[in-house]
Amino acid sequence: MKNPPSVSVIEVGPRDGFQMETEFIPTDRKIEIVNGLIEAGLRHFEVTSFVSPKAIPQMRDAERVVAGVKRVPGLYLTALVPNPRGAEAAARAGLDAMVVFVSASESHNRANVRRTVSESLEGFKEVARIASEAGTGLRAAIPTSFGCPFEGNVDPVAVGRIIARLRDLGIDSISLGDTTGMATPPVVERLIRHLGEEHPEVELAVHFHNTRGIGLVNAYTALGLGVSKFESSVAGLGGCPFSPGASGNITTEDLVYLFHELGLETGVDLERLIDVAHRAEEVIGRTLPGQVMKSGPRLKRFPLPGGKTQKRLAHPAS
Amino acid sequence: MKNPPSVSVIEVGPRDGFQMETEFIPTDRKIEIVNGLIEAGLRHFEVTSFVSPKAIPQMRDAERVVAGVKRVPGLYLTALVPNPRGAEAAARAGLDAMVVFVSASESHNRANVRRTVSESLEGFKEVARIASEAGTGLRAAIPTSFGCPFEGNVDPVAVGRIIARLRDLGIDSISLGDTTGMATPPVVERLIRHLGEEHPEVELAVHFHNTRGIGLVNAYTALGLGVSKFESSVAGLGGCPFSPGASGNITTEDLVYLFHELGLETGVDLERLIDVAHRAEEVIGRTLPGQVMKSGPRLKRFPLPGGKTQKRLAHPAS
Repeated sequence: MKNPPSVSVIEVGPRDGFQMETEFIPTDRKIEIVNGLIEAGLRHFEVTSFVSPKAIPQMRDAERVVAGVKRVPGLYLTALVPNPRGAEAAARAGLDAMVVFVSASESHNRANVRRTVSESLEGFKEVARIASEAGTGLRAAIPTSFGCPFEGNVDPVAVGRIIARLRDLGIDSISLGDTTGMATPPVVERLIRHLGEEHPEVELAVHFHNTRGIGLVNAYTALGLGVSKFESSVAGLGGCPFSPGASGNITTEDLVYLFHELGLETGVDLERLIDVAHRAEEVIGRTLPGQVMKSGPRLKRFPLPGGKTQKRLAHPAS
Repeated sequence: MKNPPSVSVIEVGPRDGFQMETEFIPTDRKIEIVNGLIEAGLRHFEVTSFVSPKAIPQMRDAERVVAGVKRVPGLYLTALVPNPRGAEAAARAGLDAMVVFVSASESHNRANVRRTVSESLEGFKEVARIASEAGTGLRAAIPTSFGCPFEGNVDPVAVGRIIARLRDLGIDSISLGDTTGMATPPVVERLIRHLGEEHPEVELAVHFHNTRGIGLVNAYTALGLGVSKFESSVAGLGGCPFSPGASGNITTEDLVYLFHELGLETGVDLERLIDVAHRAEEVIGRTLPGQVMKSGPRLKRFPLPGGKTQKRLAHPAS
């Protein structure tokens, strides 16, 4: 399959990144980051989570974050909703779509939301009703689609079955989550091919984590298989709850850099995006894993050491 | 082209990694890391650099490092040599091969060794004579093969011309260096295809840096083009002299993990390699960029939170 001429980058840092932070990030800083990303050209955001403020205090300002986002043409704002109460709040907030989520593996779904996969799917009916009444779109995310930290490999058939149930609810835009970075090129290929055959009408997005260093290899593999929607996190915000110090989401600016170098359109201004990545690092207060934010784009020129006097480099390079 | 069934991983951390450290790493710790990597199954090392101890004090123990390495069947030890004096020392030390190096771009070569590309190539004649007399092999590295931080793009034709001159010296094993992480899949493809046509007899290795986050995407691309020799650094040791905080070499354990997941043989025991990566981090005294060392291999199982009482995860995961 040929690479698509343009690709969509879905920014999930404000949700999947910020929620990993234990210290509360002031609402206006969250809004500043999102609006900065909009100025850099990003248009699709998973901007927050309408969850219990007791369960995740970091997301307690969900309504205010949504209200603070600058509306521009083409903007598509979504947020996670775990239950009908979240859906009611999300409907009031005025989003383009709510995102329901159910893990591909039973153990992870139980650990994540204390429900079986079937119970989760059953619960989505009421969320779908609320969304439909509010005129809000509905998407779904399937964590552990590429592997489960408790169960190991996940059968593509199980993911396909969940998608069939989601489609019964009218959901046709689905994000495959690589929650703990277990995707590899063969795993990606097997799943994407299986779903392409079984559910050709579904619009698939991929959500890779860089937990094992190969997040962008997986994105590149998915791209080659015809996937055109990619979730990522500015500056590489986020982490993995099981592996202290390990990376979370793939980094938006590194992904955008890769896409541009492949000749693909993203609508994003990489230099401005890098500026926002640095601002995100300031907000978080520690070094984040993004690479292009540290090195700049490929053809950034450096001055010769010592100018005309030609000082030598400190180390023989290779 | 089909992926090769087995690949060679060349460890360059003891040279390209350690040399970036300003504080001297005790010789026995350097040897401990190399011997640990040998126990993990690695066999090909760029183990040190025979350079002026004034220019690079970190490499002043080159002879002692070589002497301390445990000799096992199949071991292939190399070291960088910048000039005939280094070659004499390398010949005495007893290596399998010396590595001469000349940048693909004039500016970088001048900044690196204060010589024009032609002067460098001319100087290799004496090194080749010394190596041949000592019965030591000879390889070459070409920094900035995929781009130059001073000049920008590098023409594959220029790299091909340098290789022609190296072959006149009897060198047929050549490493293409991505010194400041400027390689991208299209750049890799252009260069590898050009060299494959022009110099089909030359055995090419690739040396990617992760400066812009896509080092493993480039390795994956080169693999797909038939390259089977890859240079990398345990725990991601090293850095980029131009971009503070940016990554250096791609990480050996992440690369080995990727290869194993692709069904390729490396001869390396990933779990033991991860142990050595942790030891390298202790030696260096700060967090290193390797990812698999933090998260473990793909199918590492985690206990369900709270066991049978099923505690909930701290964050809805996706």
